[in-house]
Amino acid sequence: METKVVLDTLWVLITGMLVFFMNLGFAMVESGFARVKNCVNILSKNFIVFAISSIGFLVIGWGLMYGDGSPFCGLQGLFFLSGADNSPAAGAAYQGVYSALSWVTVPLMAKFFFQLVFAGTAATIVSGAVAERIKFIAFILFSFVMTMFIYPIVGHWIWGGGWLAKLGMFDFAGSAVVHSVGGWAAMAGIIVLGPRFGKYGDDGRINPIPGHNLTSATIGTLVLWLGWFGFNPGSTMAADPLAISHVAVTTNTAAAVATLSATIISWIVLGKPDLGMTLNGCLAGLVGITAGCAYVSIGSSIIIGLISGILVVYSVMFFDKIKLDDPVGALSVHLANGVFGTLCVGLFAQDKITGTATGNGLFYGGGTTLLMSQLIGIVSVGAFSFTLSMIAWLIIKATVGIRVTLQEEIEGLDIGEHGNSAYPEFVTHKLGIVSCIPKNN
Amino acid sequence: METKVVLDTLWVLITGMLVFFMNLGFAMVESGFARVKNCVNILSKNFIVFAISSIGFLVIGWGLMYGDGSPFCGLQGLFFLSGADNSPAAGAAYQGVYSALSWVTVPLMAKFFFQLVFAGTAATIVSGAVAERIKFIAFILFSFVMTMFIYPIVGHWIWGGGWLAKLGMFDFAGSAVVHSVGGWAAMAGIIVLGPRFGKYGDDGRINPIPGHNLTSATIGTLVLWLGWFGFNPGSTMAADPLAISHVAVTTNTAAAVATLSATIISWIVLGKPDLGMTLNGCLAGLVGITAGCAYVSIGSSIIIGLISGILVVYSVMFFDKIKLDDPVGALSVHLANGVFGTLCVGLFAQDKITGTATGNGLFYGGGTTLLMSQLIGIVSVGAFSFTLSMIAWLIIKATVGIRVTLQEEIEGLDIGEHGNSAYPEFVTHKLGIVSCIPKNN
Amino acid sequence: METKVVLDTLWVLITGMLVFFMNLGFAMVESGFARVKNCVNILSKNFIVFAISSIGFLVIGWGLMYGDGSPFCGLQGLFFLSGADNSPAAGAAYQGVYSALSWVTVPLMAKFFFQLVFAGTAATIVSGAVAERIKFIAFILFSFVMTMFIYPIVGHWIWGGGWLAKLGMFDFAGSAVVHSVGGWAAMAGIIVLGPRFGKYGDDGRINPIPGHNLTSATIGTLVLWLGWFGFNPGSTMAADPLAISHVAVTTNTAAAVATLSATIISWIVLGKPDLGMTLNGCLAGLVGITAGCAYVSIGSSIIIGLISGILVVYSVMFFDKIKLDDPVGALSVHLANGVFGTLCVGLFAQDKITGTATGNGLFYGGGTTLLMSQLIGIVSVGAFSFTLSMIAWLIIKATVGIRVTLQEEIEGLDIGEHGNSAYPEFVTHKLGIVSCIPKNN
Repeated sequence: METKVVLDTLWVLITGMLVFFMNLGFAMVESGFARVKNCVNILSKNFIVFAISSIGFLVIGWGLMYGDGSPFCGLQGLFFLSGADNSPAAGAAYQGVYSALSWVTVPLMAKFFFQLVFAGTAATIVSGAVAERIKFIAFILFSFVMTMFIYPIVGHWIWGGGWLAKLGMFDFAGSAVVHSVGGWAAMAGIIVLGPRFGKYGDDGRINPIPGHNLTSATIGTLVLWLGWFGFNPGSTMAADPLAISHVAVTTNTAAAVATLSATIISWIVLGKPDLGMTLNGCLAGLVGITAGCAYVSIGSSIIIGLISGILVVYSVMFFDKIKLDDPVGALSVHLANGVFGTLCVGLFAQDKITGTATGNGLFYGGGTTLLMSQLIGIVSVGAFSFTLSMIAWLIIKATVGIRVTLQEEIEGLDIGEHGNSAYPEFVTHKLGIVSCIPKNN
Repeated sequence: METKVVLDTLWVLITGMLVFFMNLGFAMVESGFARVKNCVNILSKNFIVFAISSIGFLVIGWGLMYGDGSPFCGLQGLFFLSGADNSPAAGAAYQGVYSALSWVTVPLMAKFFFQLVFAGTAATIVSGAVAERIKFIAFILFSFVMTMFIYPIVGHWIWGGGWLAKLGMFDFAGSAVVHSVGGWAAMAGIIVLGPRFGKYGDDGRINPIPGHNLTSATIGTLVLWLGWFGFNPGSTMAADPLAISHVAVTTNTAAAVATLSATIISWIVLGKPDLGMTLNGCLAGLVGITAGCAYVSIGSSIIIGLISGILVVYSVMFFDKIKLDDPVGALSVHLANGVFGTLCVGLFAQDKITGTATGNGLFYGGGTTLLMSQLIGIVSVGAFSFTLSMIAWLIIKATVGIRVTLQEEIEGLDIGEHGNSAYPEFVTHKLGIVSCIPKNN
Repeated sequence: METKVVLDTLWVLITGMLVFFMNLGFAMVESGFARVKNCVNILSKNFIVFAISSIGFLVIGWGLMYGDGSPFCGLQGLFFLSGADNSPAAGAAYQGVYSALSWVTVPLMAKFFFQLVFAGTAATIVSGAVAERIKFIAFILFSFVMTMFIYPIVGHWIWGGGWLAKLGMFDFAGSAVVHSVGGWAAMAGIIVLGPRFGKYGDDGRINPIPGHNLTSATIGTLVLWLGWFGFNPGSTMAADPLAISHVAVTTNTAAAVATLSATIISWIVLGKPDLGMTLNGCLAGLVGITAGCAYVSIGSSIIIGLISGILVVYSVMFFDKIKLDDPVGALSVHLANGVFGTLCVGLFAQDKITGTATGNGLFYGGGTTLLMSQLIGIVSVGAFSFTLSMIAWLIIKATVGIRVTLQEEIEGLDIGEHGNSAYPEFVTHKLGIVSCIPKNN
């Protein structure tokens, strides 16, 4: 086998494994930021969602995303990777129906594995946002819709050779494709579900509901930071030394600066350096740099990280003000910064900085051409994924139901949905919203 | 150095590191499924077992497993890798006494490292099954026996060029060699130890004893799933793009399907989707696909995963019915599915699907030739490892003793064996079996 | 791109990612060994310290460490990697101002990424030692000083082509550069801070203060063990099959033996096998082998590990006796064993055992030449880093203040510094030093 094929396959598989590991990161961040009575439920959701993704993306997701056939979605080789494909033959030698990835010199199964773990990420983002009141079956059904249809179709537009790719929109590792899509789906879910009981008082008061385990949340964030070294540098899908080294450093720098800026802003605004904000600041920087990590300089990654960290703090406050109850800050991290990061390509891109001919962004003399493509991408991705998600959530609501009973929500979903308790031998007490629980509880 | 040597060494070392990381996975699954009063003890056992393996396998395990000399066990270069070996020279150019791995083009130390982390896995499986009542010293002694003799000898039969390899038995990554051996050793230990106090009531009642930390158990399972991407794809011991990509996908698919099938079955049988069953379902699928991951198609991996997930649920109930008290479900995950996975090679194998000439399994027109070899392997591995383990456990029982006192078991092994408490500042209460504890406790 | 460049870049980046992951290891070990009331504070410190390192090392640390210019510190290309550099061109073809790494055939950004994660490690070591009484802002300021000045300057001496490198001192992966520097900085901090309230009674009594979460500590240690497979084998900065395989095995063997020796010694000395000692024993072995992992044989790694594990137990008792209050044992692990490991190169080195011409150590007929270089290195590194750290701590004390109020220390730094609680729903009680807390608390 040609050496380049071996090298690229090693890189794609190893970085894909790191992205897989992000499932642990999300499970820990989201369960850590939720209450103890819903811990098993969140762990169950975040665990099973990757199993669902693995099946859903195998059955049809891959085909819709990477199959040839139309600018809107794949039409050939739709089911179970059944299309013709002579990978790792590449370029002119490629023969098959998944030609959007014909430039990648790895076997089909390596391409599939890498794309699958990305699909899983998009789906798992939703879990935290709808936590603490969603029915387990409702989340399972939505996850199938997400990984079989919503994510793959949007993915086709940008990464599968679809209409946004042709328009000249760029999203290197998925600020738009993965994070904003996950965020829009989450927002639709939050709207259909409504806020958690007791979160917003009748008098306009916003009740903070602290997470039950900041050790978990910290584990999760560090695992995600590690995983992002697969997510971003791996998105080269080739062991290109200059590109992957550059991306590793832009990714890390943005995360570091955003960690600091979110911490400082929370220190100023909230009076103390809040660990939750520090962690979400880091994640915000990672999401913010994801679209542009291979297109911008180290210096630009500092600026992007700086803004991401500030953005997430104000975004959390904003979503609380408009009463979109998002227990883990997923909208602020993935949607706000996913959109911001996608936009940044149009502002900070430097043509061919790691090889890709993006053209220059606004701040580098490229005018608004690239910026407009990015904006069109952001809006169309948002409109499509939000609308489809909303329809899916509403159908789920009308059929199996979407929300647990108030009784179950107050007692916790762990017993109600799973018959388990996460820490059955530990003595716990109810926190925060005790006062607004009806007396007879 | 030849490029292939570099590539293969990178792959073997990096996947070996992932397998090493499975020690964290086992430590978290097993401690999470046990009670809080025994947490330090299980963490200690699972931590020290890899140190023991590292020494035991260095001293003699490697030599018995990979030394030349006899179909039963290695006889040359027995101690401290002291035999002649000119690796990474390979094939016809190889000169040395570890010729079973002469096809692998990596340095001897890389071969040793990779095989060592597998030995560690076999030993750590035992820890959970004998948890909550075994003396620390008894477990330590058994772990030495396991990694110095039992595992290496069985390993020699199949992977060391021994009699089962010559017979035509195939076990790609160790459903039989690692998981069933660990499972048989665990079963012998469970029999010699007897069940935990209070597990089986006099009236035939089976008392469920819930684990103390499902966050730990979930961390552990996701770490194991990650580690399995080292365990299975790494077992190529060569950076073969087609094979490693194929194995990554069969492995992941079986895990995903088994996660879902175990969840659904537990939902139907137990009334709710039990997180413990979801997690053990995933592990069952991983064990089930381990023998055949490089020999079967993606489609077959779906079927294998499906059955593994169902098998583990019924197996847990079965072992409880025959009163083999296995606190973490190790017998169901590793023994039942280790045997099942080994059998699957005889059923689903497709000749040379990733290069290895296995011949076809029963379902692919190969008749029963391969199936018979697998069956002979399963039975002989089981008879040998169970018998040797039983002898070792009985000698340990007769000398240093195997079980802590009832008093210590009730109070917990953490204080009794280690003088530590895992979470000394947290208020905990006794659960589940309180009613059958003698009054004066 | 030349194949060697691709291979080396893959190795450097992947091992660098493993070293990055050590941040999770340190966060878990250090928070696990501290009390529940200070958990958020330690998590915050250990999280933000890598963000600080990323910025500080980018701004000037890298330039001071690897810039050309003087035997004491770099003078060229000081800020933001702004110096000329045509990496991955190497050897005679290299043109640039970072010539100490001109032998490494990877892009500049890969060199930077790998060195950055090492800088982060040195800084994070300090966190645990000064835990449970330091002001958050004081730690932040010191971390900037550490990663911008102290660590890079010492690093320049040994790895940056400075005066100790020219003298013939060897420190393969940083027993001196990383661990002893972190340890000396920690010691200075401990001296300036003083012990925690209640640790040392007026009557000479030493009050044990148990950690709040041994599950965390175990997770941390296993993550660190994994990370060390990046730290040590990665320090080749080249995918050299023989060297990296050798280093993987010396590293693992020392860790394993030290785990056992520390456990046995603690069993003998303390009466029971203490899990904390087992974990710190493992880390001690890892630190002890770090300097010599590529220079000594597998046999020597056994001896080094054996002594490291014993050393850490007595060292912990020693530092308690002289009332240097180190909540997590960082001085014993990183300083004592960092010094010991550096010394071991002078004793156990075998010339060119993996290629490097170190000359032989004392025990291999090399006389005291190498040993003397190592001693000079140990002393000068210690004198410099301790002095500079002391000055930095004293300036911090005199300006923003270094220690929280007694009231805050007793109540815990989580609420005082961060307004968070790590596990707000769990019921906890004060342990250990309750009796010496003033009545009105």
